Amino acid sequence: MSGEERKDGCTVRFSPDGVATDVARGVTVLEACRSAGIAIDAVCGGTGKCGRCKVRPKGSFDPGDTSTLTADERDSGIVLACEATVTGDLEVEVLPRSRIRQHQILVRTLEAPVTRLSPWLKKVLLELPKATLYDNTADFERVQRALGDRDLEMPIITLRNMSRVVREGDWTVTATVADLEGRGEITRLESGDKCGCLLGLAVDIGTTTVVGQLIDLLTGNVVASASEYNRQISRGEDVIARMMYSEEGGGRELTSLARETVNSVISKLLDDVSRGRESPVTTHDLVGASIAGNTIMTHFFVGVDTRFIRLEPYVPVAHHMPPRSGYDLGLDIHPSSEVLLFPSRAGYLGGDVVADVLASGMHRGDDITMLIDVGTNGEIVLGCDEWLVSCACSAGPAFEGGEVSCGMRAMHGAMDRIRVNDDLTSSYHVIGDEPPNGICGSGLIDLVAEMYEHGVIDRKARIQALPTDRVRRTDEGVEFVVERRDRLGNGATTDLVVTDADLQNVLRTKAAIFGAATVLLKKMDEDLDDLDSLVIAGGFGNHLDIDRAVSIGMFPDIPREKYRFIGNGALEGARLALLSDDMRNDMVEIFEEMTYIELSVDNDFYDEFSSSLFIPHTDLEKFPSFREKKLPEGAE
Amino acid sequence: MSGEERKDGCTVRFSPDGVATDVARGVTVLEACRSAGIAIDAVCGGTGKCGRCKVRPKGSFDPGDTSTLTADERDSGIVLACEATVTGDLEVEVLPRSRIRQHQILVRTLEAPVTRLSPWLKKVLLELPKATLYDNTADFERVQRALGDRDLEMPIITLRNMSRVVREGDWTVTATVADLEGRGEITRLESGDKCGCLLGLAVDIGTTTVVGQLIDLLTGNVVASASEYNRQISRGEDVIARMMYSEEGGGRELTSLARETVNSVISKLLDDVSRGRESPVTTHDLVGASIAGNTIMTHFFVGVDTRFIRLEPYVPVAHHMPPRSGYDLGLDIHPSSEVLLFPSRAGYLGGDVVADVLASGMHRGDDITMLIDVGTNGEIVLGCDEWLVSCACSAGPAFEGGEVSCGMRAMHGAMDRIRVNDDLTSSYHVIGDEPPNGICGSGLIDLVAEMYEHGVIDRKARIQALPTDRVRRTDEGVEFVVERRDRLGNGATTDLVVTDADLQNVLRTKAAIFGAATVLLKKMDEDLDDLDSLVIAGGFGNHLDIDRAVSIGMFPDIPREKYRFIGNGALEGARLALLSDDMRNDMVEIFEEMTYIELSVDNDFYDEFSSSLFIPHTDLEKFPSFREKKLPEGAE
Repeated sequence: MSGEERKDGCTVRFSPDGVATDVARGVTVLEACRSAGIAIDAVCGGTGKCGRCKVRPKGSFDPGDTSTLTADERDSGIVLACEATVTGDLEVEVLPRSRIRQHQILVRTLEAPVTRLSPWLKKVLLELPKATLYDNTADFERVQRALGDRDLEMPIITLRNMSRVVREGDWTVTATVADLEGRGEITRLESGDKCGCLLGLAVDIGTTTVVGQLIDLLTGNVVASASEYNRQISRGEDVIARMMYSEEGGGRELTSLARETVNSVISKLLDDVSRGRESPVTTHDLVGASIAGNTIMTHFFVGVDTRFIRLEPYVPVAHHMPPRSGYDLGLDIHPSSEVLLFPSRAGYLGGDVVADVLASGMHRGDDITMLIDVGTNGEIVLGCDEWLVSCACSAGPAFEGGEVSCGMRAMHGAMDRIRVNDDLTSSYHVIGDEPPNGICGSGLIDLVAEMYEHGVIDRKARIQALPTDRVRRTDEGVEFVVERRDRLGNGATTDLVVTDADLQNVLRTKAAIFGAATVLLKKMDEDLDDLDSLVIAGGFGNHLDIDRAVSIGMFPDIPREKYRFIGNGALEGARLALLSDDMRNDMVEIFEEMTYIELSVDNDFYDEFSSSLFIPHTDLEKFPSFREKKLPEGAE
Repeated sequence: MSGEERKDGCTVRFSPDGVATDVARGVTVLEACRSAGIAIDAVCGGTGKCGRCKVRPKGSFDPGDTSTLTADERDSGIVLACEATVTGDLEVEVLPRSRIRQHQILVRTLEAPVTRLSPWLKKVLLELPKATLYDNTADFERVQRALGDRDLEMPIITLRNMSRVVREGDWTVTATVADLEGRGEITRLESGDKCGCLLGLAVDIGTTTVVGQLIDLLTGNVVASASEYNRQISRGEDVIARMMYSEEGGGRELTSLARETVNSVISKLLDDVSRGRESPVTTHDLVGASIAGNTIMTHFFVGVDTRFIRLEPYVPVAHHMPPRSGYDLGLDIHPSSEVLLFPSRAGYLGGDVVADVLASGMHRGDDITMLIDVGTNGEIVLGCDEWLVSCACSAGPAFEGGEVSCGMRAMHGAMDRIRVNDDLTSSYHVIGDEPPNGICGSGLIDLVAEMYEHGVIDRKARIQALPTDRVRRTDEGVEFVVERRDRLGNGATTDLVVTDADLQNVLRTKAAIFGAATVLLKKMDEDLDDLDSLVIAGGFGNHLDIDRAVSIGMFPDIPREKYRFIGNGALEGARLALLSDDMRNDMVEIFEEMTYIELSVDNDFYDEFSSSLFIPHTDLEKFPSFREKKLPEGAE
């Protein structure tokens, strides 16, 4: 806005970070943030839609469109980073809520003991007969001969040093032999006896977080765990935004960011496990990896096109990515190591869900089990050892911080438990025990349930005109004040409110999940009563109050003892596949046997969804616990 | 030598090339040549031994050791490029004989018709059912389904673009399917019907020259041929010099130079075949390659260590390099294409000889055949459909221009045919019809035979003291003048002579070959008379006069109609393996069945070698054609 002298590059300084970057005149402040490495929340991928990337610039800039901001915000100099453009030197204050912050990442898994360890990797100690003029067979064929398998292959990278390795060990070597999908390969050769150490890597590549474990393949134990948020987040918070970013030319960048994130997790794991050891564990000690992720993350990670997953009819490039080497995938593990990627059943039902099923064991007994993994999308699997059906519902990002004005992911500053008091003030718990900035998924479920119980909303989740200053009418509709601005975290410019529009988004999300679950049961002619078990997978379950989720009609009203939480099933599934060929066979079988139902062309789904757009449901017979309860005033 | 002002870098200018390079003070002139891209002849790899790299510098330099030069040469300012060091700015005249020049490269092969074409590559036209919401299987699995093979793999690079390719062709695609060594893979996917073009590459990587052919895999025809000298030559002319260069840290450079040479040949092939075509043939159209080379070239090409091939007991890293992709090997062909590398039997019996045998067909009939490939090393194979034995003799580089003062490779300026006249002057033919610079292998054989017939040398190849100015005594022994300096090519400073020492080197070379051939026959209890066929493979046979080679006792004295030339058998073998699975099976069988005899620990070899150190042989019974001939004076 200032009329300072024109120059080609503009210096943009960020506070309170104290970092600066030089950018060309005319780029957006969001681009300047990315260039400076400031992780900023842009759920929509920088298209001006989500209104999350609030910043307060001082200096030379064009504010762009500010119509989604409140008058208060505009008055205090706030603009959207994706709308504002740099016209000269600039100082930018990034509001705390606009930042991507430390997450609650779910590393806890079942860590079920594997009964019979059978990783696809083994170490074999070889005492090779020394080469002489009477037996000058090549080193490679000598090792093949000692292993008794002339079909074993060896990657160039391992061939390259083998003559030195063989002689340094005075013809005693340790061979790491891999046999994945029937292709035997000598992954690694070490001098002398190195049979005591055999490590593998299990990874869950989530849209939000990447979690890894170092697995001792000789014992099956987890020897280290680490996590990090997915570095792709600053290019769009959900998969749709990222696919659009990729289609605009950002595909390679997204692949690099995914790989960088995994490599950073590996680096943490190695640091952790090397602490106190005489010789540190190195990247080359990781001789195998098993990776589960949703279809889109897997596509980005491998580096293939996602365009046709986004567009109808939602076609991935590949369900089953053939195994690749660590080198091919740019991973900081042994370059010749094979990497197992969990197969995806559909564009929106990925390898992470196959891994969930594997970890849950639901494919093995005759109990009829339903598995629900709620993230930005809800994925539901129903089945037993005889059959499996699955579907994905675009639940919307309401429980991951999207499409809800006060929503945020389950990270520091998020209300994860909420009780509404009789005076309609709220009591709550905040992750990290600090002043709140917003409400995460479990908090929203609590809030809706409590508002309904206190008569603040009716069965259609409409806010009632109550005689209290906690309910107020604005230009855009009615809103309920969860907390006053003076009690919120640093930088809050408005009260923390939930609006009628927000509540409708939550209602649609819960209706999509319950509707989808009902459709699956109907397809298989099963009833809610037939369910022997209900498995909740994923980070969502970590904070969740099942009673509340049932009371708003999101999860089925079945005896609570049938509910089971498996935590990060994707990571656990990846670990199991690393350790056992039975599990790898199961993985393939789950992938092949699991029927996928495309809800967008399913006639039942719309009916079931519509019937679920009530608290808890149109048909109270489905929610026997609540049948007798007094309905709040204003409910039909 | 001049006392010019000191500066850090020195400019070295080359004439008559007119190119210049900046080098650090203290580097050798040879290194400056390499830096300027001047291909200079340094048989010994720059160790001061071969005395080939003669240059005439003017300016600031230290001449180094010039003891191997003649007084005349020293007087005219000649030094060795590998000995002289740069001490300041310099102008260097490179003598014509010091240069590596245009070669006679043997591209001619049998081009035997293959009776049943069965390349490991095929193209399949697929009309894919269009994806819908009711069938949204991924593109990769859709193609697998259409091909009826769910085990087919696909490299990342092909996966990466497949969704675009499928849709550009409106769901009609052409898949190139490879099946080499039991691993089915979809190498390439093209939009629409592209079944009319399927090309492969056959290459012979020789120590001196690299020759390639573009093969139409639909007809088996050779559609283009091209060649180039191996760019490694400037780092050492023979394999020993190059292995030493590699051990001194030049390994990666040698790998790059080998690959660069092959890529340059590919570029020539593509230019050639694209001429006049509407759409040019591109590197991606080359979807498979078959490569034969000696063990050391194959190791350099793949990029693995050669140190233990050079040292006793001569152990390669691998006989059978597993198939690699074009990308892995840095080749300018389709990156996903598989590259077949011919297996090597031993450190000094390479894939080129396996290819020779394949091309000769000697492994198929019950005729007893001997195959001889003479290069820097001589390789000999004896056998039929029942058995094959082989050996390599370090024939020495006498026939490739090494260890003989007047020797040079069969390139422009080389005498390849020589007759000694009654007045002891010589008549000769020069490759390229220009004034001679030296004598290549076939010329040397002619010369020795003619000198013997004219009584210039005795049966031990010692020059006789004849009353002629063509024979003269020097400080180092006796020499025979083949041609006066004034009739030689530009830059000659001395007469073209052959010395006693040269002749002993030729004698040892021919004795090694004949001795080795005799050992093989003896091992199998066969006699010279039992030979049904004698196959000469390689460039050497191109210029060779068999009668002369027999008359000096290098090749067996059997009926001349039993001799057969197959030309570049390595290239022909590579072509056959590209075209037919029978041939690929034969290749593996030859490799596996062929017994290798290590002559350095063979008791018979030294005896047979010693007995062959006569013209034609100690035992004249072995050379019935010459039994009755009058022996020249001086012979015992």
